[in-house]
Amino acid sequence: MITIFVHRDGRTERTTSIDRAWLNPAAGVTFWVDLQAPSIPESLILSDTMGFHPLAVEDAMSAIQFPKVEAYDGYLYLVLHAIDFTAAGSGFKTHDVDFFLGQTYMVTVHDGRSRAIAELLEHCPRNTRILGDGPVPLLHRIVDAMVDDYRPEIEKLEDRLDELEALVFENPSSQLARQILEEKRDVSSLRRVTTPQRDVIGRLARREFVDISTEMSFRFRDVHDHLVRVADDAMLFQDRITGILDAHLSNTSNRLNEVMKVLTVVATIFMPLTLLTGMYGMNVDLPHFAGGTAAQFWWLFGIMIATIVVMLVVFRRRHWI
Amino acid sequence: MITIFVHRDGRTERTTSIDRAWLNPAAGVTFWVDLQAPSIPESLILSDTMGFHPLAVEDAMSAIQFPKVEAYDGYLYLVLHAIDFTAAGSGFKTHDVDFFLGQTYMVTVHDGRSRAIAELLEHCPRNTRILGDGPVPLLHRIVDAMVDDYRPEIEKLEDRLDELEALVFENPSSQLARQILEEKRDVSSLRRVTTPQRDVIGRLARREFVDISTEMSFRFRDVHDHLVRVADDAMLFQDRITGILDAHLSNTSNRLNEVMKVLTVVATIFMPLTLLTGMYGMNVDLPHFAGGTAAQFWWLFGIMIATIVVMLVVFRRRHWI
Amino acid sequence: MITIFVHRDGRTERTTSIDRAWLNPAAGVTFWVDLQAPSIPESLILSDTMGFHPLAVEDAMSAIQFPKVEAYDGYLYLVLHAIDFTAAGSGFKTHDVDFFLGQTYMVTVHDGRSRAIAELLEHCPRNTRILGDGPVPLLHRIVDAMVDDYRPEIEKLEDRLDELEALVFENPSSQLARQILEEKRDVSSLRRVTTPQRDVIGRLARREFVDISTEMSFRFRDVHDHLVRVADDAMLFQDRITGILDAHLSNTSNRLNEVMKVLTVVATIFMPLTLLTGMYGMNVDLPHFAGGTAAQFWWLFGIMIATIVVMLVVFRRRHWI
Amino acid sequence: MITIFVHRDGRTERTTSIDRAWLNPAAGVTFWVDLQAPSIPESLILSDTMGFHPLAVEDAMSAIQFPKVEAYDGYLYLVLHAIDFTAAGSGFKTHDVDFFLGQTYMVTVHDGRSRAIAELLEHCPRNTRILGDGPVPLLHRIVDAMVDDYRPEIEKLEDRLDELEALVFENPSSQLARQILEEKRDVSSLRRVTTPQRDVIGRLARREFVDISTEMSFRFRDVHDHLVRVADDAMLFQDRITGILDAHLSNTSNRLNEVMKVLTVVATIFMPLTLLTGMYGMNVDLPHFAGGTAAQFWWLFGIMIATIVVMLVVFRRRHWI
Amino acid sequence: MITIFVHRDGRTERTTSIDRAWLNPAAGVTFWVDLQAPSIPESLILSDTMGFHPLAVEDAMSAIQFPKVEAYDGYLYLVLHAIDFTAAGSGFKTHDVDFFLGQTYMVTVHDGRSRAIAELLEHCPRNTRILGDGPVPLLHRIVDAMVDDYRPEIEKLEDRLDELEALVFENPSSQLARQILEEKRDVSSLRRVTTPQRDVIGRLARREFVDISTEMSFRFRDVHDHLVRVADDAMLFQDRITGILDAHLSNTSNRLNEVMKVLTVVATIFMPLTLLTGMYGMNVDLPHFAGGTAAQFWWLFGIMIATIVVMLVVFRRRHWI
Repeated sequence: MITIFVHRDGRTERTTSIDRAWLNPAAGVTFWVDLQAPSIPESLILSDTMGFHPLAVEDAMSAIQFPKVEAYDGYLYLVLHAIDFTAAGSGFKTHDVDFFLGQTYMVTVHDGRSRAIAELLEHCPRNTRILGDGPVPLLHRIVDAMVDDYRPEIEKLEDRLDELEALVFENPSSQLARQILEEKRDVSSLRRVTTPQRDVIGRLARREFVDISTEMSFRFRDVHDHLVRVADDAMLFQDRITGILDAHLSNTSNRLNEVMKVLTVVATIFMPLTLLTGMYGMNVDLPHFAGGTAAQFWWLFGIMIATIVVMLVVFRRRHWI
Repeated sequence: MITIFVHRDGRTERTTSIDRAWLNPAAGVTFWVDLQAPSIPESLILSDTMGFHPLAVEDAMSAIQFPKVEAYDGYLYLVLHAIDFTAAGSGFKTHDVDFFLGQTYMVTVHDGRSRAIAELLEHCPRNTRILGDGPVPLLHRIVDAMVDDYRPEIEKLEDRLDELEALVFENPSSQLARQILEEKRDVSSLRRVTTPQRDVIGRLARREFVDISTEMSFRFRDVHDHLVRVADDAMLFQDRITGILDAHLSNTSNRLNEVMKVLTVVATIFMPLTLLTGMYGMNVDLPHFAGGTAAQFWWLFGIMIATIVVMLVVFRRRHWI
Repeated sequence: MITIFVHRDGRTERTTSIDRAWLNPAAGVTFWVDLQAPSIPESLILSDTMGFHPLAVEDAMSAIQFPKVEAYDGYLYLVLHAIDFTAAGSGFKTHDVDFFLGQTYMVTVHDGRSRAIAELLEHCPRNTRILGDGPVPLLHRIVDAMVDDYRPEIEKLEDRLDELEALVFENPSSQLARQILEEKRDVSSLRRVTTPQRDVIGRLARREFVDISTEMSFRFRDVHDHLVRVADDAMLFQDRITGILDAHLSNTSNRLNEVMKVLTVVATIFMPLTLLTGMYGMNVDLPHFAGGTAAQFWWLFGIMIATIVVMLVVFRRRHWI
Repeated sequence: MITIFVHRDGRTERTTSIDRAWLNPAAGVTFWVDLQAPSIPESLILSDTMGFHPLAVEDAMSAIQFPKVEAYDGYLYLVLHAIDFTAAGSGFKTHDVDFFLGQTYMVTVHDGRSRAIAELLEHCPRNTRILGDGPVPLLHRIVDAMVDDYRPEIEKLEDRLDELEALVFENPSSQLARQILEEKRDVSSLRRVTTPQRDVIGRLARREFVDISTEMSFRFRDVHDHLVRVADDAMLFQDRITGILDAHLSNTSNRLNEVMKVLTVVATIFMPLTLLTGMYGMNVDLPHFAGGTAAQFWWLFGIMIATIVVMLVVFRRRHWI
Repeated sequence: MITIFVHRDGRTERTTSIDRAWLNPAAGVTFWVDLQAPSIPESLILSDTMGFHPLAVEDAMSAIQFPKVEAYDGYLYLVLHAIDFTAAGSGFKTHDVDFFLGQTYMVTVHDGRSRAIAELLEHCPRNTRILGDGPVPLLHRIVDAMVDDYRPEIEKLEDRLDELEALVFENPSSQLARQILEEKRDVSSLRRVTTPQRDVIGRLARREFVDISTEMSFRFRDVHDHLVRVADDAMLFQDRITGILDAHLSNTSNRLNEVMKVLTVVATIFMPLTLLTGMYGMNVDLPHFAGGTAAQFWWLFGIMIATIVVMLVVFRRRHWI
């Protein structure tokens, strides 16, 4: 689906076709073309009408791209990632949004999952400043909204890590290693997406590509700053996950120790006693022991109790029980 | 709560409002505005009276910011972290203090937990040099006090690591892995805060932003040097924590070995003997063994003792007992 | 086997010998020499006819070379790696292709396993643009096809990792560690090949060596971008493999815990009971127990059942069963 | 304790006070002030007589400083570490020596443990060249002696690592993990001290601070080269320690395996046999078994021996015994 | 032992002394001085005749030096490492060769183990080009031969790693961890030697020190390329060793699991049955069981067999057997 908004003479209106004269900055026109899940015929607007480079068009139409910025003659091609809210409940997921940024226009290509773009498209006809400020502020509005969506996801991830950390010690189960591995993958995805994204925005903030105003550079620096923190969090989470896995391993070993101590204590107490009963069950006349009277039994019983007490004392000294 | 001190004609006095003429260096006035846990109306002094950039004001008013320095037109915006002494007994915690540094003024924004600022605010009316020296030395005074507070915290952390290291070998418990994980988190926090802080101060010391005097550059270099050591300690602690966890794991395995050796020794000694008594308990006539006399018993007893002795010798040779 | 194609006057034709006059750009001739598994006499075309440097010729003729680019006087020598499809079913394998790139020619040296070159050689006589566009676009065509072949291999590798991850938790076997180690080696090979390859193509894209057109630089940037993603995947896979091995270790420990708990529960229940039966099997008159009637048996039986119940409750409380 | 040597007119003599005229290079005087464990009044010579910056004086008087070099107006302030020989037998320890290096003088501040300085102070009156060569060669003499002392310590550390490595396999004990952790800490200290020290000397060798002669630059390059090797050794030791700990863990697991195999072999052989004797001990008429004659016993005995032999063969096949 | 070859007027002849006039490039003389395990008097040729810097001479005479290159006035001092073939069968060993490279001469200092130098010394009188090409090509000849010797050693190391990897899974023994640790040390040595060596040659190839011809720069680039691959292999081996150790640990744990499952299965089957025989061996009248006839035995026997079958089914379901 193609949506085109054009801003001229102070008014923003929706239109259906692009006049190539608008590309000339002298025309004083700003326009925004949004392609939502474009079909192949719809994508011709990129290659034919706008004349973008085939490689950039191919990237924009392809399924998965990583964050990057590429300068072409007269325009920038950017890929950025936004949180994918349609993938609720299944960890951290992002989808990519493609931007073509020219002097008088911005073209966005996405698959319809972008909340930030949907909102701006809705407000665009009423709020003339959205397009009236020019393409770079428009890009900033979208990017700022996209990056703001990262923070709650980061916090959810942090909560899950807190929970894992508690589980390791309070209720370790055989499923825990699996959960840890899954969170590790989420953290890796986060790091993988935010690091190049941070660099892309950082280059915009440093005015590496386009001649943007000081004010816009301040704003992109702010977005960059948010991404720096997100990337920093991703690094820290990576570190925590490793720590959690190590603690889980250490905890498992500890519990094994506890189990084995119980077994050893039980075996060490009962094996000698069982031997004793076995000896007195033999079909052999025991020398000091004629016929086996009740008094003899009490003697044996006493020896058994004494053996148990001595062993319990020994184990207590070793801190086993 | 807003506190304003102004220094003119050699005197420092408290005032309630700011004259925008003071912003002109030619006026020869230095002033310090301190906002403690500012309310939204109080924060208007940042945006309206002082005219700071909305992004910087937003950052200053927001809860958590990481150490950074940002140059705006005519002033610097800095975020630095101080030790949070209100969070006693719960590991390493910091809170952020925001600074706006102009040619004739400094504005500080914090939530009231800053010991360094509280002390300076108290001394400010009596000691005219505090404001008389200008905003950069004032910044240095606060930052120097803030950074000096790190050293005792580092030492507490080091003591806790020493204690953990001793516990691993002397009194290992199932709680140990949890404590190690907690200290690891503390060390990560420390590293996370000090590394960017060190870089911020380093950039001030290298006179990257403001034209500060050689003397002030020496002083910031000294603060930077302290932070380098703190960041270095954080790295070293990270390394030690890893070593402690590894040693804990190794120690747990070792103790498991000890437990299993005891079990194996006990089982290996008593199982054959129990078999022997079982054999002589069978309802079967043993060939070389008519009726079972006392002499026979002594033979059996001798065999049992011999078996035990031989096994103990074997285990001793293997260094198991 | 030597194959030579020459493009002049708009036509591409196969030929058997090279005219050294073609080396002069003024001649308007472009030619492509392909050496497939060249014999020593065939390799003379490199040293004698084309006059390439002995070191480059030696490298081109040697078995294994890692991706690199070297500038010689008037030509570039490149080594790149393509997926080896002849090694089906045995993990990730590559073979090297050597390129000599001059102003009017390209020479390729390979062992006949290169699918990209085989296809181009076939299409070369019919499609005059292949050679007509010049040597740099020809190089790009081959490299682009070679790099496109990496994606399916990456996906196969990713599938194998997914499978390993599932196996760790669902059907751990003693062969698993071996498989993990093998995949680790594949991932290492991938990373080892793609990292230098990415850098070689990156240098071409940045026009470091040859004066290539903006268009070709865009195209090499696109290839570089693909390799950046492949190298990025390799890094991620390395990380995942480590996580899988850690999870495997943790899982093994967990299962050991389960096994040991079963053993301990069984031993703790049956050892005391066996002692009890042993006591009543001794050739000793038990005091409170004359002759041993059926009622006595039920008492004993009740004690045994009670012991079992109490122990099961204790183990349940400890979450062992 | 303050010691002052002054060199003028070709003679070196001890003196008790400093003439500020000596600071002028034109005076042709070179002097060396050594402060050994200076008291507060003695330290006034630094701040008042020599006029050093308060921050440098504070650092010089403080207990622990890490290696660094700081340029002040007209002089350098250096902190370097020497091996602490007074801490014999307790691993790797260093103490810091502070240097102030001016055009005509060198001031050293230390706590009296510096062997290199003690020797030079002794030789200074007799060997006029020590001071006559100027302050930079004097600094080099001390630094060279200090760095030469590292080599034997490195070798001791290496010997201890060799010993640990042997112990892991030959005589593993529960104390081993502790020793490994201690050596790890020593290696960390070594690395922590040598890395900044190497950089300080490297900057001197590159003539970053002072205009030193080519000859002196060669000499500092040589000292730098020694420190590069020491830092390199520290990295290698770190790596080895990690390897030793891993091997220790692996070895502990292996020994546990051995212990458990013994237990399992013993239990698997004796449990079935004990069951057999139990069956023939039951108060039940066995059908094929009337009265229990000696022949029956030999049958049972044969079955037992056969069971043992079969099991031993099975275990041998599994490489358990 | 000192060997001197001088090349003048197209002839190479052996001589016993050096004419200092040869040092002048205008003399058109090239000479090579080789010191094999020089005695102190022999080393005077370095300091007195050739006038090399005392620090370089000291380094050349000392036992162990790491690869480096140092520029002195008018000559270069290089240390490079060659494979030590005299240390056969004991892993990876190198020895150092020192070079002094002037405009008209090369001086080599070694301990007689250098195969590359021995061969060249032998061929020198017959092949006039060896010296006739000048000192830089002579250096290249030796270095090239030295670096070529690394490849077979790398392959031996790789074979040993393959073998270790197979052993981990096929025939794990308690000696394996030790072997892994030894290979790890060999790989560390390799990396330690090749990394600086690669950098030294790389700097020669980039013509950082001497004004060498394009041809020689190509040749050194080729040597550099070989060392890059060796250093790359060393990194990969390091990675593999870590993987092998991890797999070994994981494998040990797995085998422990197997052992423990056998023990648990055996104990779980025989302990209840032994209890049963114990019960029927008690001196107690069992109620439903008068006298104990053969039919009763078959009942008991049936219960035992049923118990075994049920347990085997349970264990099979748990994949324990």
